[in-house]
Amino acid sequence: MDKPYVLGLDLGGTNSVFGIVDARGEIKATTAIKTGGYADVNDYVEAAAQALEPIIETVGGIDTIRGMGIGAPNGNYYTGNIESAANLEWKGSVPLAKLFSDRLKIPVSITNDANAAAVGEMTYGVARGMKNFIMITLGTGVGSGIVVNGQLVYGSDGFAGELGHVVIDNSPEARVCGCGRKGCLETYCSATGIVRTAREKLLHDPRPSLLRDINPDEITGLEVTKAAQKGDELATEILAFTGETLGKACSNFALFSSPEAFIFFGGPTKAGDFIMEPLRKAYNDNILYIYKGQAKLLLSGLNGSDAAVLGASALGWEAEKL
Amino acid sequence: MDKPYVLGLDLGGTNSVFGIVDARGEIKATTAIKTGGYADVNDYVEAAAQALEPIIETVGGIDTIRGMGIGAPNGNYYTGNIESAANLEWKGSVPLAKLFSDRLKIPVSITNDANAAAVGEMTYGVARGMKNFIMITLGTGVGSGIVVNGQLVYGSDGFAGELGHVVIDNSPEARVCGCGRKGCLETYCSATGIVRTAREKLLHDPRPSLLRDINPDEITGLEVTKAAQKGDELATEILAFTGETLGKACSNFALFSSPEAFIFFGGPTKAGDFIMEPLRKAYNDNILYIYKGQAKLLLSGLNGSDAAVLGASALGWEAEKL
Repeated sequence: MDKPYVLGLDLGGTNSVFGIVDARGEIKATTAIKTGGYADVNDYVEAAAQALEPIIETVGGIDTIRGMGIGAPNGNYYTGNIESAANLEWKGSVPLAKLFSDRLKIPVSITNDANAAAVGEMTYGVARGMKNFIMITLGTGVGSGIVVNGQLVYGSDGFAGELGHVVIDNSPEARVCGCGRKGCLETYCSATGIVRTAREKLLHDPRPSLLRDINPDEITGLEVTKAAQKGDELATEILAFTGETLGKACSNFALFSSPEAFIFFGGPTKAGDFIMEPLRKAYNDNILYIYKGQAKLLLSGLNGSDAAVLGASALGWEAEKL
Repeated sequence: MDKPYVLGLDLGGTNSVFGIVDARGEIKATTAIKTGGYADVNDYVEAAAQALEPIIETVGGIDTIRGMGIGAPNGNYYTGNIESAANLEWKGSVPLAKLFSDRLKIPVSITNDANAAAVGEMTYGVARGMKNFIMITLGTGVGSGIVVNGQLVYGSDGFAGELGHVVIDNSPEARVCGCGRKGCLETYCSATGIVRTAREKLLHDPRPSLLRDINPDEITGLEVTKAAQKGDELATEILAFTGETLGKACSNFALFSSPEAFIFFGGPTKAGDFIMEPLRKAYNDNILYIYKGQAKLLLSGLNGSDAAVLGASALGWEAEKL
């Protein structure tokens, strides 16, 4: 292969992390800039290009780089644009793929972070060789990337695969979601959802718990996991509820694409079996009989801190000139 | 085109209907045999071949036929088999595509009826030119066929797209489904589901209704529609509940594949706006904001009585030698 590398950009609200990656998913060089502070997106691209110059030189120059992939909030694969991302300062439609492609003279693809994670798993992770799987990313929200016939599902507009907003509770008591609707999966199974469960449980369940030593405003998913690891009953039940809820939801998702695997990624998965065991049980108890035993329920195969850059970079292998 | 026709087989529990179809979806000739009464599937294929012989001659012989498509319960596209269909007398795995291909010497594809309907709409119906849509078939159950990137979603095992079994009610009062689970969409929105809604409503709602003149065991979806057309309030509310429930479910389905359309087919759609208006309202009220105004909610473009054969035949254009 005369162009042995791809460039990945994990564009977050605060930081923009770049990595140069080879075909085996090894990160050869990285750099980063702040995402904020560039009112004009052209200045951001210029700052990025300047930060990239030295690391591109270390791998032999731009001619060794096949393409670039960007994982960004509201990144649209079809248009190459970021579309009105709430937590970025650029408003409206930002043609980020084209700007980077023009500046670096390489093909550039963009999508959202959960989709990038799915492509990353397929290229370097536990989904290598899989043609049908569903990636679930657990963070502030719940994201998803769906792969069918070896292709990411982008849908008619580039925004398919928002399983975090599937309504799983139709009751009047369903939790209010940031999207303005009620009962969305992510209000239960994101890191934020776990904290909501914890606060509710601490309020309504009189049992003692290590979590009562923490200011309710400062409880995090990680604190719940730590308490569970120390044998705390309430914390264990909070994580079990999270896993059960996610497992039930996934048993419905299987009806769409009959995937060979679900792959879970993100902070809450650090709870390991505290979440995954109840998840597996709920999935198996609720799955339609024809799919029984079909799908593996796996944790991401990518190193957490590198996963976002790896996922983004994976898009670069298939990027085409805009 | 030197082979201008395809052959379709709509294989039902009672009848097997065959049609020879041209590229515009015009049925040039049809024939039918009983599905039952052939303990050995080889005898069934032989009887079918003999029934087909004269109609194949009327279009110029087998050399004018590009391929054959079969829509059958539990038809598996990947294997060409019917897998343990409950309402057929052949048990276990039946290699029907291979048997027909060997006998007729043409390529043969098989899938289930809802998937065949989706391919039919894409080839001859309202989904011509669409790359991403979801077909919902309403009958005894609720079936579905999902098209992504212009391809039917078969999933890892050939059995993807069973949206009739998405659990839409998690409450203890959820309806029991034939699959052994509770709260499945089809217990509410199939023709059978409409009848269940009618019986429940007649029991708990004291208002007068034309439906009270019918023996509760003999109420059908069609009777409910007829009553609604005569201005019956209860019947109108039964259909509105059906449409609302289906519209809400579809607003969740959109999160998977962001389709450009949902296409509805089957007996209950004869209720027209009695179902479709509440369906549209519920869909629009519940859809995640990023998909607002995106998907069309359409009725099938295929003539009801021909649709199953047309759908099956459409598979024949792409059938390949097994």
